Amino acid sequence: MGAARRGPRGRHPIFQARPVPSRTGPGGPVVGVKDTTVKEFLAAVAAPTATPGGGSVSALAGALSAALSRMVAGLARGKAGYEGVESELAQIEDRGKVIQGRLEALIDEDARAYESVIAAMRLPKSSEKERAARVDAMQAAYRKATDVPLETMELCVEALELAEASVKKGNRNATTDAAVAILLAESAIRGASLNCAVNLASIRDETFRSNAEERVEQLLKRADEIGHEAMAVVTERL
Amino acid sequence: MGAARRGPRGRHPIFQARPVPSRTGPGGPVVGVKDTTVKEFLAAVAAPTATPGGGSVSALAGALSAALSRMVAGLARGKAGYEGVESELAQIEDRGKVIQGRLEALIDEDARAYESVIAAMRLPKSSEKERAARVDAMQAAYRKATDVPLETMELCVEALELAEASVKKGNRNATTDAAVAILLAESAIRGASLNCAVNLASIRDETFRSNAEERVEQLLKRADEIGHEAMAVVTERL
Repeated sequence: MGAARRGPRGRHPIFQARPVPSRTGPGGPVVGVKDTTVKEFLAAVAAPTATPGGGSVSALAGALSAALSRMVAGLARGKAGYEGVESELAQIEDRGKVIQGRLEALIDEDARAYESVIAAMRLPKSSEKERAARVDAMQAAYRKATDVPLETMELCVEALELAEASVKKGNRNATTDAAVAILLAESAIRGASLNCAVNLASIRDETFRSNAEERVEQLLKRADEIGHEAMAVVTERL
Repeated sequence: MGAARRGPRGRHPIFQARPVPSRTGPGGPVVGVKDTTVKEFLAAVAAPTATPGGGSVSALAGALSAALSRMVAGLARGKAGYEGVESELAQIEDRGKVIQGRLEALIDEDARAYESVIAAMRLPKSSEKERAARVDAMQAAYRKATDVPLETMELCVEALELAEASVKKGNRNATTDAAVAILLAESAIRGASLNCAVNLASIRDETFRSNAEERVEQLLKRADEIGHEAMAVVTERL
């Protein structure tokens, strides 16, 4: 769930079955990727609660991409025929590890950012003062709910660059793995961009909004360029 | 790792650092999605061993897609404005659950199929009889290593259909989640198709090969059609 916009009939039908903004209540602990099995995470996504949703899944897709690039590089390191690219391979591993780790954290942060939007929406609004405080809290929450997928986008563009490097320099027998890394980074970038867009639509600060929109456009353009070139290398290799 | 083809110099550089075909040795238990945390799974992908690789990750991407479609449908069920589509929503949930469950199993099966190819390659080949048995074992293993990603493709095309249904019938506030479901199913289909292609290249049975190649083409074509239409609906909704 990337946003909590009003439905076409002015309702929030998504709230009707959700008495609390998260599985564990507002402010409660979010189930993290360290404690959740793959099967449990999938079940949590499938559950009829808004988090974890597409934002978290996009961050996970980016983390999987970075992990695959590390594998493709790692399978070449120290092998005959790859001596000349050792420093590039080491860089894929080092940078990939950092990107993967940060994207793992963003899986949870995306869910928390969404829950903050809901919590702000539920603030009291009976007095003028309360209404103003609620608007401020909602605006701050929407900014956070934009910043998180924007960071996911930034990191996934880097993951896409690593995937391209891994298909060019990594183990040639693992070209299909590098291709999956490319495809997942691209999906993650596009998915996160939609979450940015949908939350930006609720932000009143025009400077923040136009800056973020511009950055989203730049990143999408960059992703198109790298993705196109990287898949051309895959086709050449297979 | 989708295949174990010979490198450009006739070597298998991927084997040099892998004394055994899996983390736990040939025939040993494969770490399953039930017992592995998300973080551990990502670390296992990133490790410089061929499994779990792009085939397993493609199956996981498909499972995540099905899970998101179930969420988008589940967030609409029983809500005002969605009474007329209850049976469609129930179908997304029911079918999505089956597809997700099968794709979860394929995460592990893909790794095992690859390991069988490696095990067959290592069979003795000192006599004519041994060589013939080894070729038979390798051909059987390559067929399995094609069947697994082909099943992943079939299921992910179904997942893509569910994602399209969820964007059309599901909770409209979760349109970006449905979009991520579409994007991930598309990536999973393309990723799995590359694994099919790379393993098919080693199969000598021309009937098997041409049948599988034809099916791959059909599924890619179908995926393009659905994906294009589904993303058009997303654009309309956002």
